[in-house]
Amino acid sequence: MAVYTDITDEELAGLLADFDLGQPLAFKGIAEGVENSNFLLETETGRYILTVYEKRVKADDLPYFLGLMQWLARRGYPCPTPIADRSGEALKTLRGKPCVIVSFLSGLSARRPTAALCREAGEGLAWLHLAGEGFSMTRPNDLGQAAWALLFSRLKDQAEALKPGLAATLEADLAKFSAGWPTGLPGGTIHADYFPDNVFFQSQRFAGTIDFYFACTDAYAYDVAVALNAWCFEPDGSFNITAARQLVAGYESRRPLTEAERAALPILAHGAAMRFFLTRLHDWGATPAGALVRPKDPLEYERKLAVHRSSPDLVLFGAPA
Amino acid sequence: MAVYTDITDEELAGLLADFDLGQPLAFKGIAEGVENSNFLLETETGRYILTVYEKRVKADDLPYFLGLMQWLARRGYPCPTPIADRSGEALKTLRGKPCVIVSFLSGLSARRPTAALCREAGEGLAWLHLAGEGFSMTRPNDLGQAAWALLFSRLKDQAEALKPGLAATLEADLAKFSAGWPTGLPGGTIHADYFPDNVFFQSQRFAGTIDFYFACTDAYAYDVAVALNAWCFEPDGSFNITAARQLVAGYESRRPLTEAERAALPILAHGAAMRFFLTRLHDWGATPAGALVRPKDPLEYERKLAVHRSSPDLVLFGAPA
Repeated sequence: MAVYTDITDEELAGLLADFDLGQPLAFKGIAEGVENSNFLLETETGRYILTVYEKRVKADDLPYFLGLMQWLARRGYPCPTPIADRSGEALKTLRGKPCVIVSFLSGLSARRPTAALCREAGEGLAWLHLAGEGFSMTRPNDLGQAAWALLFSRLKDQAEALKPGLAATLEADLAKFSAGWPTGLPGGTIHADYFPDNVFFQSQRFAGTIDFYFACTDAYAYDVAVALNAWCFEPDGSFNITAARQLVAGYESRRPLTEAERAALPILAHGAAMRFFLTRLHDWGATPAGALVRPKDPLEYERKLAVHRSSPDLVLFGAPA
Repeated sequence: MAVYTDITDEELAGLLADFDLGQPLAFKGIAEGVENSNFLLETETGRYILTVYEKRVKADDLPYFLGLMQWLARRGYPCPTPIADRSGEALKTLRGKPCVIVSFLSGLSARRPTAALCREAGEGLAWLHLAGEGFSMTRPNDLGQAAWALLFSRLKDQAEALKPGLAATLEADLAKFSAGWPTGLPGGTIHADYFPDNVFFQSQRFAGTIDFYFACTDAYAYDVAVALNAWCFEPDGSFNITAARQLVAGYESRRPLTEAERAALPILAHGAAMRFFLTRLHDWGATPAGALVRPKDPLEYERKLAVHRSSPDLVLFGAPA
C-alpha cells in the first residue's frame, strides 16, 4: 500500500502527450504494490494503471519485467500489458523516475483464500509457467538460495534479537539448503512473489496476475513452494492441507509435476519461507518511523520456517497421492 | 491518503448482497480522503466508491452528509451520489463501521491550480451554494469561530513550542475574532473544506466536488474565504492576487457577493486560516509514529495567518473593484 510520488496535472499531461490515449478523465493513487507508486488512470480510450518505479526496483531490470508482461499478454495470459507510446517505447520517465502505463486488469484479490480459490490460483500459476515458455530474456533470482547466506550474515543480530537462539537455528537451516538444494529441476520464468495480493479472481475463477517485479529465471517448483507458503497457512500458523492439495491439483491440471519436483517440494518450501523471512526481517529493521508503508511482520515467516523444519513432509501430504 | 480498514472478499460480497449492483469486477483501496477509507469498486453495473467511515467522522452526522449529497445530486450538482440498497437505505455497516457506496465521479484534482482553474473552482463553489438552497437539514459548524478559543486553549503549549511568542499572537487574533466576527451574512449549506484535493476538473473545466464531511450551515462568504486560503497562496507563502481575483470572479459569475460579504472577507480569511492552523496543529501532535497518514504541516497555515494579520486588505485587492 503506497503512493510515494505525487504527480502534478502538468506532469501527467506531459506524459500523456507522448501517447494516443486521449484526455485524462480520472486519476487516483491506489493502495496496490509495496515497491512502487500506482495510480488509476482513466482516459478517453479506457482505463490504465500508471506505475512509477521507486528506488527499490532496479532500473536495469525494467526491460525484463516489461518485456515479460508484453510476452505473456501476447500469449493470452491475463496480466497488465505495458502500453507503448507513439515511438514504440513503454518505459517512460516522470519526475526523474522510470514509469510505465499498463492496461487495467479487472478482478479482485482474495484476502482470505478458500481451498477452491487455491485450486484456481494453482491453475493460474501453471498457466503462467506455460505461457512464459519461449520468452527469450532471463534474469537470475537474486533473492534465491545462493543469496540467503549473505543476506542472513547482515541480519544475524536482528534475528537473534527477534527470538533468542534463532540465529543458530537459521544457520542450521542455511547449511541444510547449501548441502541439499535441488538442481536440475524443470524451470524457466517464474513469478517468485505469487501471493494472494497479486492474483485476481472474478466470480470465484482465476482472472489474472499482477506485480511481476520479482519475476526471474528459476525452478517452476520453487514458484509452487512460494505459493504453498503464501496461500495455504491459516492465520493461526497451521498448514491447511486441503488448501495445499487443491493448489497443487489446480497446478497439475495444467502442468503435472515431475517426480523430482514433487520430491523437492519440502526443501523448496522450507527455503521459500527463509527467503521471505529474511527480506521481511530486513524491511522490518529498515523502515523509518513515519513511513507510509507498514512492514510485514517477519514472525509470520519465522513460524512457517518452524513448521517446515519440524514437519518437512507436510507439503507432500498436500500433494495428491 | 489512507486505507485504514481492510475489507475481505466475504465482507464485500455480504455488503453487495443487499444491493442491485451485480457482481464485483474490481476492488482497490484508493489514496483519497484523510478521514475515511475509500475503495474503487467496479461491478457489472458500473463504477462506485465505497467509503468506510473511520472514527473521526461522527456517526450521528452521516445522515446529514448523505442527505446533502443526495440533495445536491438530485439538483444536478456534480458530486458523488449515495446509492440506496434494496430497502432504500444508503448508510450501511461493514466490520462494525458505517459505510456508504457512492457513484464514481470522473475528474482530476489540480495539484497546482492555475488562475484559470481558480476561476472554475470559484464558479463550482457558487453553484454548490445555490444548489444547496432548500436543503432542509442543518448542521452547526463545530469548527467555526465559536470553537476556536477552546481548541486553542488545549494547544497553547504546542503552538508556543512551534514558534516562541506564537501563543500570544494567536490570542490577539482570537480576541479580534471574538470582538468583530461578522454576523448576519447570507448563508446556508457550505462545504467548509473546499480545497484543491476535493475539486475535480476535466479538460480544464470544473467537473465536480467530493468529500462533504465537513459540510455545515454557515455564511457562504466563509466558504469563499476558506477557498481563497486553500487555492490562492503560492508554495513560497505569497498570496496570488491574480488567482484570488479569478476565484472571486468565477464565484460571482454565479452568485454575486453582497457589500457586507465583500467587507467581511478579510476577517473571514484570517479566521479561516486560524481554523486550519488549529486542526493541523492538533493532528500534528496527535498522529502516532508509524501511522499511514502523514499529517499536514501546521506551519503552512501559520504563514497564512501572518499574511492576513499584517495585510488584512489583501484579499480585498483580490476581489474585482
